[in-house]
Amino acid sequence: MYMENGDNTAVEEVSKPIEVTFLPGSNSVQVAAGTELIDAARAAKVDLESPCGGKGSCGNCVVRVTKGEVDSEDRGALTNAALAEGYVLACKSLVMDGPVTVEMPAASAREGANFSDGDETHLIREELLPKEWEFDPIAVKWLVQVDAPRAEDGLSDLDRLTRAIQRDWGKHEVLCSLRIMRGLANALREKEGLLTVTLVRDGKRLSVIRIEPGNRTTRHYAVAVDVGTTTVAVQLVNLTIGRILGTRSAYNDQVTCGLDIISRINYARRPGRLQELRGRVLKTVNELIERVASSHDVALHEISNAVISANTTMVHLLLGMEPEHIRLDPYTPTVLQTPYLTASEVGIDINPDSWIYFSPCVGSYVGGDITAGLLCTDLATNSDEVNLFIDIGTNGEVVLGNREFLIACACSAGPAFEGGGIECGMRAAGGAIEKVDVDPVTAQAQYTTIGNLRPRGICGSGMIELLSNLFTTGWIDPAGKLDRTRPSPCIRVESKRAAYVIASAEESDSGKAIVLSELDIASIIRAKAAIYSACALMLGQVGMGFEDLGRIYIAGGFGRFLDLDKAAVLGLLPDLPRERFHFIGNSSLMGSYMISVSQEYRQRQLELARRMTYTDLSNDPGYMDEYRAAQFLPHTDATRFPTLASADV
Amino acid sequence: MYMENGDNTAVEEVSKPIEVTFLPGSNSVQVAAGTELIDAARAAKVDLESPCGGKGSCGNCVVRVTKGEVDSEDRGALTNAALAEGYVLACKSLVMDGPVTVEMPAASAREGANFSDGDETHLIREELLPKEWEFDPIAVKWLVQVDAPRAEDGLSDLDRLTRAIQRDWGKHEVLCSLRIMRGLANALREKEGLLTVTLVRDGKRLSVIRIEPGNRTTRHYAVAVDVGTTTVAVQLVNLTIGRILGTRSAYNDQVTCGLDIISRINYARRPGRLQELRGRVLKTVNELIERVASSHDVALHEISNAVISANTTMVHLLLGMEPEHIRLDPYTPTVLQTPYLTASEVGIDINPDSWIYFSPCVGSYVGGDITAGLLCTDLATNSDEVNLFIDIGTNGEVVLGNREFLIACACSAGPAFEGGGIECGMRAAGGAIEKVDVDPVTAQAQYTTIGNLRPRGICGSGMIELLSNLFTTGWIDPAGKLDRTRPSPCIRVESKRAAYVIASAEESDSGKAIVLSELDIASIIRAKAAIYSACALMLGQVGMGFEDLGRIYIAGGFGRFLDLDKAAVLGLLPDLPRERFHFIGNSSLMGSYMISVSQEYRQRQLELARRMTYTDLSNDPGYMDEYRAAQFLPHTDATRFPTLASADV
Repeated sequence: MYMENGDNTAVEEVSKPIEVTFLPGSNSVQVAAGTELIDAARAAKVDLESPCGGKGSCGNCVVRVTKGEVDSEDRGALTNAALAEGYVLACKSLVMDGPVTVEMPAASAREGANFSDGDETHLIREELLPKEWEFDPIAVKWLVQVDAPRAEDGLSDLDRLTRAIQRDWGKHEVLCSLRIMRGLANALREKEGLLTVTLVRDGKRLSVIRIEPGNRTTRHYAVAVDVGTTTVAVQLVNLTIGRILGTRSAYNDQVTCGLDIISRINYARRPGRLQELRGRVLKTVNELIERVASSHDVALHEISNAVISANTTMVHLLLGMEPEHIRLDPYTPTVLQTPYLTASEVGIDINPDSWIYFSPCVGSYVGGDITAGLLCTDLATNSDEVNLFIDIGTNGEVVLGNREFLIACACSAGPAFEGGGIECGMRAAGGAIEKVDVDPVTAQAQYTTIGNLRPRGICGSGMIELLSNLFTTGWIDPAGKLDRTRPSPCIRVESKRAAYVIASAEESDSGKAIVLSELDIASIIRAKAAIYSACALMLGQVGMGFEDLGRIYIAGGFGRFLDLDKAAVLGLLPDLPRERFHFIGNSSLMGSYMISVSQEYRQRQLELARRMTYTDLSNDPGYMDEYRAAQFLPHTDATRFPTLASADV
Repeated sequence: MYMENGDNTAVEEVSKPIEVTFLPGSNSVQVAAGTELIDAARAAKVDLESPCGGKGSCGNCVVRVTKGEVDSEDRGALTNAALAEGYVLACKSLVMDGPVTVEMPAASAREGANFSDGDETHLIREELLPKEWEFDPIAVKWLVQVDAPRAEDGLSDLDRLTRAIQRDWGKHEVLCSLRIMRGLANALREKEGLLTVTLVRDGKRLSVIRIEPGNRTTRHYAVAVDVGTTTVAVQLVNLTIGRILGTRSAYNDQVTCGLDIISRINYARRPGRLQELRGRVLKTVNELIERVASSHDVALHEISNAVISANTTMVHLLLGMEPEHIRLDPYTPTVLQTPYLTASEVGIDINPDSWIYFSPCVGSYVGGDITAGLLCTDLATNSDEVNLFIDIGTNGEVVLGNREFLIACACSAGPAFEGGGIECGMRAAGGAIEKVDVDPVTAQAQYTTIGNLRPRGICGSGMIELLSNLFTTGWIDPAGKLDRTRPSPCIRVESKRAAYVIASAEESDSGKAIVLSELDIASIIRAKAAIYSACALMLGQVGMGFEDLGRIYIAGGFGRFLDLDKAAVLGLLPDLPRERFHFIGNSSLMGSYMISVSQEYRQRQLELARRMTYTDLSNDPGYMDEYRAAQFLPHTDATRFPTLASADV
């Protein structure tokens, strides 16, 4: 179906209208030969997104032509296998001869209709995905024709399979697990040697991780997984066309065993507890994989690879490795760069021989989520100026550097921004209050929720906006105390503690009012203070100030929108021109996706991990002073926030 | 302890007697400096065998010097690790300074006392073991000092372990399983980084298969395993000193599912049956390993390697791989050369990360037992003349060749020589009748049993001797029928069938007479006919006759002694000068042992497997004619056995 179309004269000659039918739905339209397929789709009122504007770079308009003829001038990121199956980019294909039948891929046909999918796609910001890269996934499906057995050649089934693979791949060592060998005799004979092999390349070794009789090259998927201390997110990737199909997230089932890393490590000290923690996080990951796969009609055994990005402690707990020495001086983990492990070893419920690729960690408190996240920035690649990367999570990580140097540190921010330890806190999911205005006079809130559902709680981005607005309207003071002197229906005082009512019991989904207490506010202030002071201290170590920074990347899965102005009002972020800030969302998840589809990004990540130097703040005597000073809004030292100080706050 | 002793003057100068104490038992003796340690042992009445006559080649006199000083002029096959632990060859060590304390290794101290060990050592003929080879086992134990963790170096425990191993081994890739990584943090810290690692080298990869805190280098064992269709044998090897400690054998628990390969394959066709067969043979292997290990105080996790030699079908059944296509034209197995598999994958109960090394197979009916067995011969190495190798088992295999060519074929002999399908047949174990004379006049038997126990049955070597003697004394005719015309208390006739009574009910262990029926005799004749005709046919294919052969190696686990004259009388073996025949016992087991301790032999075996051409007799129209003609004693064509024909038979 795919051909270089250098000569368009043929198009001019044809004049008879051609019928194009789009499945499912059977919408039909008559078009002239030479019409772009994406225009035919629009004429047929078939919804086919093209966010790149028809440049062929986003891959969103991929369809499959099962009948008729189209000419494609650009294959985009489509693999040979996909082209062979008839997949084309609608924006780069001209209708040539008909009648033409076009199948919308199941995923893109469903995407818009499935609310819960749309619900979570905000976790990554697709516009940040690189526009061009070599599509080279960790796992590939490959169609081979294995020679028929002959008595006289002295070759076993395994020998013949190995030769068939080496014909295409050259002198790689071909490895098969016992599980694969057990199915080989029958698989080879079912379709007379026509076999789809799923391969993982690791240096000069090719591991056969699945064999299927016949051509199954288009049923090929991966999952990208971000395992956070508080939140776990899983993304399903179609490895035939390199596209993200959907995302699911949930709280890490370990949260009941401790809210932060140190309390998890302490929890693990009693016998049996390490196994419990491992079981809990595996349960969360496997349930999310199951949910996202089943809603796209993908069977678990069709998932050929998982890329997991997690902080160092989460890697240890997920693998059942003793985390104790991460906590104890000199803070040494068992592994930083996890070697080749299979899904069945790790306990991830996908094709059992699949490689579970772990993003490399840098130190005890700077993990694979950071090396994955940095892939979504140009902090360390094509930049001369010094940049800052801040990942706001339960463990807050900060990376400072440019193409010359990279230093990283971590701080314990707590789970507040992910909704943990906050009375009405919740993850950024349907029903979460994500935007809140505050009336200067009455203090009453005007909010919007994710999915426009009845409010169920407040997520991180909502908390930041609310706190900032309460502060600028004077309803809280720099220490985070609510104003008890002005009467407002929204301020409730019980004994010594006050709380702010965001949504009344009548408005809320549960029938209970959604509030933010002074205790909650104190948690949020502690979190922002931890992150700000980590940034300030690390800059100080290299003799720099915030004003010397080029770009500042803010990562975190706490919401769809982070209002950077509001974050600066709180003193979470420094008071700098807003154009220097870039909110990149869950960059750990997005980086995991990039790794799953690109060898180039895996190499870049390994290099980042090697280059980065970990610096331990807990050894710095100045850290506690910085931290204490930052526990005000915006800061005890007002000169640090000149713009805010001069504005009417 | 070990040093090159070029200058003996020091020995001359010392004259004070030195006390040498041997443990356990604390036998002490006073000797002059310069006395050989083995002579001191004899003087102390400590039993230390030296079958090589003090040449230092057999390794039987290995002891450990824990106190005092000895000088060793030859290290024999001792590893550096063993030398560092104080192990020396008593026959090559001089007492230098005292008092000296010498420990007898637990195994050699006990060997003589344990009857059941002695019982099975006949399965291999140690005198056939090569006298010199490079001791280079598949698994090695290695003592490493891992650097202490430091916060500033950014190295994980795994990084530091890898570096410590690479310091000694160079730029190998070091691989660790998740199981090893899980124990690493605590193992490293228990003895301040002093760690015994068990390593398996496979090309430029080093797999860490076990880690133990402190120095455990001398607790290092392997098992060599021969898995036959009827009989399974397991040998325990001390990998520190390279010695065989003991052997156990038992019937393959699969025998109840069919007596030969084809019936096992047919049995496996129903659902669940393949799993059953796999479970049965694993049970047999694991029980034998447990028995031989426990009787030498070896824990199962101290066994670092297993070498398994088996026919191709047994490899498939043991690994749970579909055997069906071995039986069906074009007779293609799933694997011939099994790749790297761990003990836990295979289901062998030793250290779970150990490599289970399978001897390479050549064809559907010529397996790893043959490539292992050939290692015990010089058939294919330093010989110009054409030689024949015959492995007499349930599946009989024949190899013909020299250093220029190697061809192999197989025939189904049935389990008769291993006692299978024979009324009173048994394996060559305690109580088996292994030698039988027949009185020419009364037909009465004079027998001896293995271990001189009350007779429990008759083993393969006993059957061959008995049948031969019955034939030469005229008590059976060339068709295998007993003489009913002469009265004898030993010949029982029931309806049309007659049977020969070897031992009466009173003599036997079970209280039931031990007999050989005409049906049994027919089975034995069929077995010998299958083997003889396979040899004859293969010789015919290359235009040769038996008389052109140089050496003829006879392998098989059917008994301690095979009387080659008697075998020739039956027509099992050709009628050739007896010095051309070499009975090499269970060469599959012995070859497995050699592979477990020597890289050189592994290479040689792979080369043998590559060189060998498999020829399928079932495709040869002449085979049935040959087979039918051989079903007489010695043969229908008397001219083939000229010596016997001219003798007074």
